[in-house]
Amino acid sequence: MEKKTVGLSGAFKGNTAPKSFTKSSIKGTKFTIAISSAKGGVGKSTFAMNFALALKSTGSKVGILDADIYGPSLPKMMSIKEKPKSEDGKSLIPINQYGAQCMSIGFLVDEETPMIWRGPMVTSAIKTFTQKVLWKDLDFIVIDMPPGTGDTQLTFAQEIKVDGVIIVSTPQEIALLDVKRGIKMFDKLKVPILGLVDNMSFFKSEEGKNYNIFGEGGVEKVANDYEKKFLGKIPINIDLRIAADSGKPLFEKNPDHEISKIFKNIANKIKESFL
Amino acid sequence: MEKKTVGLSGAFKGNTAPKSFTKSSIKGTKFTIAISSAKGGVGKSTFAMNFALALKSTGSKVGILDADIYGPSLPKMMSIKEKPKSEDGKSLIPINQYGAQCMSIGFLVDEETPMIWRGPMVTSAIKTFTQKVLWKDLDFIVIDMPPGTGDTQLTFAQEIKVDGVIIVSTPQEIALLDVKRGIKMFDKLKVPILGLVDNMSFFKSEEGKNYNIFGEGGVEKVANDYEKKFLGKIPINIDLRIAADSGKPLFEKNPDHEISKIFKNIANKIKESFL
Repeated sequence: MEKKTVGLSGAFKGNTAPKSFTKSSIKGTKFTIAISSAKGGVGKSTFAMNFALALKSTGSKVGILDADIYGPSLPKMMSIKEKPKSEDGKSLIPINQYGAQCMSIGFLVDEETPMIWRGPMVTSAIKTFTQKVLWKDLDFIVIDMPPGTGDTQLTFAQEIKVDGVIIVSTPQEIALLDVKRGIKMFDKLKVPILGLVDNMSFFKSEEGKNYNIFGEGGVEKVANDYEKKFLGKIPINIDLRIAADSGKPLFEKNPDHEISKIFKNIANKIKESFL
Repeated sequence: MEKKTVGLSGAFKGNTAPKSFTKSSIKGTKFTIAISSAKGGVGKSTFAMNFALALKSTGSKVGILDADIYGPSLPKMMSIKEKPKSEDGKSLIPINQYGAQCMSIGFLVDEETPMIWRGPMVTSAIKTFTQKVLWKDLDFIVIDMPPGTGDTQLTFAQEIKVDGVIIVSTPQEIALLDVKRGIKMFDKLKVPILGLVDNMSFFKSEEGKNYNIFGEGGVEKVANDYEKKFLGKIPINIDLRIAADSGKPLFEKNPDHEISKIFKNIANKIKESFL
């Protein structure tokens, strides 16, 4: 990086990686699993909800924390319209839906209100959600991370004991660049990477023809190149999108759907790695 | 918002909207057009590059500023591997490619290096790119914005005279939520919205059947509901993705492609609104 940098101020060259931080688990939870993508729009939230519900179906107690302050998807995808209660005016009680404990900034503001916030406000919101929410007896908390490699990622990596991260991506080259940046970030911040998922892998038309709309095999190749586990492919599936839009994730709607089985399979793999 | 907020600290309730700011044009440019999406992964960068080249083909001098610090796409999409020169060690000379002046954080660091930066560093980078780059005699500078409603958006809205923003989205419900948040943000920050684009509108199989993979008509409906201009639909097209991955945008590769014609049409509409 030094070599290539031209004409930027000294501040830009500073190493912003953490030196030493005290990391705590999120209270009321055993294991924290972050779902990340670096690039947005790869189906990360859809993955997070279905994965969490698949994890729950294995007999674990599961919570979902929507950490995407700028673009919360959980309220819509999980059909939650109520606001969380607070008994002492300081802590928040998560909302139970489909058997999972849920929290999102979207519970606290109107659906269409943009959070026009600079970084420190985002950090403050993340701290509230990890320190002031009364998660109860969870085996796993699944964190739906925002895209990027900024404030939210740094806050989690520096202050919270994240037990593992799953990186989701579509297979086109331009998305893979973001995957590589994500892998390097988590490696640098010493957050274990549980594996990579190839999402929107291909599209099968009614005539049975497969179209590699976003390219082919890219995520698996990156996993191999970086010596990370490859967790599987999820095809583009209209049922999956319709279920997300309808407020009931496909796994909840139809656990026997071929796509649900892929989620179950990934959930089993992840669960095994924590036993 | 007040009504629904429960148990959050006072800081959260503060109105972070700008009060009064001095906005300046980007030096060396006439009009600044931001390409925004609130949600990531909707094809915003692909749109930005092809739109800028289409605008160029109408006879305008065009620059492209990649403002996505966490996930720069311009170097890859425009095949730029060199680093920008500086004559005085302070300012940067943009790189000419396909007849457009280009700048990206990706020119200054290795392709796979993640920018693990908190908000203030991002703001500082944006200021460098808007104040210290020697853009020359541009009619239009096209800004490829990052997703979200955070530091980069606020910095542009408060300190730079943005003449208009084009909002790009895919049509699924969950993405439309982000579009609505984006519209509200730009309205609140008083940045004019030039119009909305429905991207990855549908997929046409070889058998000629159209699949509404991401839903149908959603963006146009939002445009109508919010009294914004609807600029058009761009279908999912494998040529468009392959061209982006190959480092030569489709408009440059084949200006007569059916998709290129859509970009030309949108470019003409936008140009007219500035004449």
